[in-house]
Amino acid sequence: MTSRPPLHCLRCARAADSFAGCRTCAAEGIGVNTMPPLADLAGVDLAAYPGGPWGLPTALPVSGPPVTLGEGNTPCVRLRTDRDQGGSAEGELWLKYEGANPTGSHKDRAMAVGVAAAVAAGADTVVAASSGNAGAAAAAYAARAGLRCVVFTNERVPAGLRAQIDALGAERRVHPGAAGARNAAMAQAVEEHHWYPLTSYSSPSPGGNPYANEGYKSVAYELARDFAGRWLDAVVVPTSRADLLAGIGRGFRELAAAGLIAHEPRLVAAEPSAAAPYTAALRRPDRAEQERTRVAAQPTVAFSLGEERPCWQGLDALWRTAGAAVALDDEAITAEGRRLAAEGLVLEPSSAVGSAVARDLARTPGSLVVAIGTATGLKGLVG
Amino acid sequence: MTSRPPLHCLRCARAADSFAGCRTCAAEGIGVNTMPPLADLAGVDLAAYPGGPWGLPTALPVSGPPVTLGEGNTPCVRLRTDRDQGGSAEGELWLKYEGANPTGSHKDRAMAVGVAAAVAAGADTVVAASSGNAGAAAAAYAARAGLRCVVFTNERVPAGLRAQIDALGAERRVHPGAAGARNAAMAQAVEEHHWYPLTSYSSPSPGGNPYANEGYKSVAYELARDFAGRWLDAVVVPTSRADLLAGIGRGFRELAAAGLIAHEPRLVAAEPSAAAPYTAALRRPDRAEQERTRVAAQPTVAFSLGEERPCWQGLDALWRTAGAAVALDDEAITAEGRRLAAEGLVLEPSSAVGSAVARDLARTPGSLVVAIGTATGLKGLVG
Repeated sequence: MTSRPPLHCLRCARAADSFAGCRTCAAEGIGVNTMPPLADLAGVDLAAYPGGPWGLPTALPVSGPPVTLGEGNTPCVRLRTDRDQGGSAEGELWLKYEGANPTGSHKDRAMAVGVAAAVAAGADTVVAASSGNAGAAAAAYAARAGLRCVVFTNERVPAGLRAQIDALGAERRVHPGAAGARNAAMAQAVEEHHWYPLTSYSSPSPGGNPYANEGYKSVAYELARDFAGRWLDAVVVPTSRADLLAGIGRGFRELAAAGLIAHEPRLVAAEPSAAAPYTAALRRPDRAEQERTRVAAQPTVAFSLGEERPCWQGLDALWRTAGAAVALDDEAITAEGRRLAAEGLVLEPSSAVGSAVARDLARTPGSLVVAIGTATGLKGLVG
Repeated sequence: MTSRPPLHCLRCARAADSFAGCRTCAAEGIGVNTMPPLADLAGVDLAAYPGGPWGLPTALPVSGPPVTLGEGNTPCVRLRTDRDQGGSAEGELWLKYEGANPTGSHKDRAMAVGVAAAVAAGADTVVAASSGNAGAAAAAYAARAGLRCVVFTNERVPAGLRAQIDALGAERRVHPGAAGARNAAMAQAVEEHHWYPLTSYSSPSPGGNPYANEGYKSVAYELARDFAGRWLDAVVVPTSRADLLAGIGRGFRELAAAGLIAHEPRLVAAEPSAAAPYTAALRRPDRAEQERTRVAAQPTVAFSLGEERPCWQGLDALWRTAGAAVALDDEAITAEGRRLAAEGLVLEPSSAVGSAVARDLARTPGSLVVAIGTATGLKGLVG
C-alpha cells in the first residue's frame, strides 16, 4: 500500500477517515466529498499536453503505475446553430465528445485513475454501484489492471450497457428499487471484504471516489489547450452527483492558479427537470438553504442522471464561477437528441441535456460555449 | 462542381471514367481501384500533425470545405503479451483503437472525406452499400453535411448497427441475399438519380470510393507521429476489400517518399478463414495467378469481413512491403475477442482477427507490432 495524499472536507476542512465523504457535514444533511489538495500546475506546457488524466500524472493523487486504455483527448466538434440556418448573429457552440473514450463515456477518465488507486492500495476487488456508464468503465479498467470487479446495478440499466458490463467480465448484481439497498450491500462489501469502492455508498451521496474524480480535471486541461488564447464563456455539464462538474471546476481552478488560463469559464449544470436539485437549489435565497435542498426525483429519459440532493462540491463549482443550473423536460431532451442525430451525432439522452442548455447560451453574439457530450448513444439504442 | 484530381488505374494506369474501378482490368477478372496521385508530404512537420484526415488536408483529393465529426487521432493501447505473464522475451504489441471514432469505426475517416467529395461534386444524396460500419459512417457524415443518405444493407446487419443507421436519419433498404442485387440497385441509383456512391457497386469490387479511401492514409500518419523514431515492424489490418489496408499502405508510401519515416512497415492482412482471398492468393506461385484468386466465402463471426476475391491494391500493399496474409478460424477469433475483453477492450470480432494475428507476430523478441482495432464491439452486443 503506497502513501496517498490526505483527504479533507471541501466544506468544513475536517480530515476524512473513509470514502464516505464528510460525516460531520452529512449529519447536517449535506453530501460533500473529501478531496486531496489541488495540484500545482506551475511550469506546465499546455501546448505539449497529450490529453487524458495520465497526460499530466503529477496532477493526480496516485503514485502507482498508470492504468490506461487510451482514455481522454476527446475531440471538440462545432455544432450548427440557428445562425448557420440564416438566423441572427450568434456565438459558437461546441460539443466535447466524450463518447470517444474506450468504453464510450467520460467515466473512463475517472475509472482509469480510480483503478490505479485501487492497485496502489493493494486491492484485489473493486466495486461500483452504477445504473450505467460508471459500471462499464469500472469493469473495463478493473479488467485492464487484472482486478476482480463487482457492479451493483438496478433494473433500469439498458440492455447495451448490461451486455457491455458482462462482456468485460464484471460480476453484475441487480438490486431492484431504491439506492438504499445498493448502498448497504456496497458498504458491507467494503467493510467486511475490503473491496475497493469506485463509487460512493453513503447518503447523502458525497459524489464519488475522490481519487477517481481527479481524472475529470483532464477535461479542463484539454479545453484550455484546445481553446488556447480564446475567451471560453461557459462549459455546460450534464449533472447528477456532480463528479464531472466538480472535477472540471477543479481543473480550471488549477489552471487559473498557475496562470495557464486568463479566467475560469462559467460552469453550468444541465439537469432533467424530473430530477433537478441544482436548479432547485439556486432558486433558494441563501447558501445555507441551497446546500440543504432536496427534491423528489422522477424517472427521466436521461437515465444516467437523477438525484434528489445536490452534492456540495457541485454547488461550490457553480458559486465560484458565477455559474447557473438549468433544467429541461424530457420533451426538450428528446428533441435535442434528434437535433444532434440530424447532425451526425448519436449521444445518450443525458448528453443532449447539456447541448440543449449550451445551445441556448450560445445565442449570445460573440459567445463561446462548450457542452460536454458525456456518452455515446449506442448503448441505449437497442433492448 | 469543383475540379477533382484525375483517377488512374493502379494496375494498368488507364484513366478512369467512373467510380466502377478499372473496367479494363475488371474484364480480366481483376478488381482494382482507380486513384488520384499520391500526395507530396515534403516539409510536413509530423510532430505538429493533429491527427485525422483533415489534420493534413493538402494530402486529400478534395478541394471543398471539410466535413468533420472529430474523426481520427485515435489512441494506441499497449496490449499484454505472454511475456507479461512470465513468458519468454517478446516484442511489443499495440492496438490502435478505431472504435474511438465518432460512429465507432475506422470507416469515419473515409466517409468524412467521401461526403466532402460528394458536397464538392454538388450531390444532394449519397448512397452506400454496407452490412455494417460503413453504412453508419455514411449516415453520420451525410447528416453532418445536410445530405440525404440511402444505405443498402442485407439481413445480416446486427440490431445495434441497424438502430444506429436509423437514428442518424438514413434511409435503410434491405436487399436480402447476394451482393448482386444490392450492386444493381446502387448502380441504378447512381446512373438514373445521380446519387453519389460512397461504396463500390461493380463486380469484381474495385474496393471503395477513391476519394473516401484517401481518408485512411491518416492512420499511417498518426502511427508515424506516435511511434516517431522507433522501428515499426508490422501493421496488421483486418481485411476484406482492402480499403483500409491499401489506404494505410499509401500513407506510409507518402511518408517514406518525403523522408518522414526511415522505412515502410510490413503490412499484414488479417482474414477470417471462412473468407480469406488474400491468404489464398499469396499461397499461389506468381502474381498473375494471385491477382485472379477466387475463394468460396462462408459466413463468419467476423461479420464485417468476407470477400471472394482480393482487391488488387490490397495485394499490391502486401507485395510492396514484403507483407503477408494470415487467416484465422472463428474459434480463434472468438477466443481473441475474449482475451481483449479480459483486458478491458470490447471490439467487434473483425478487430479481434487483427490483434490475434498481430499477437503472434509480436512473439519475435524486439519486435514492434501494431494491430488496427477497426471498430467498437458495442453495436453487436445486443440483438
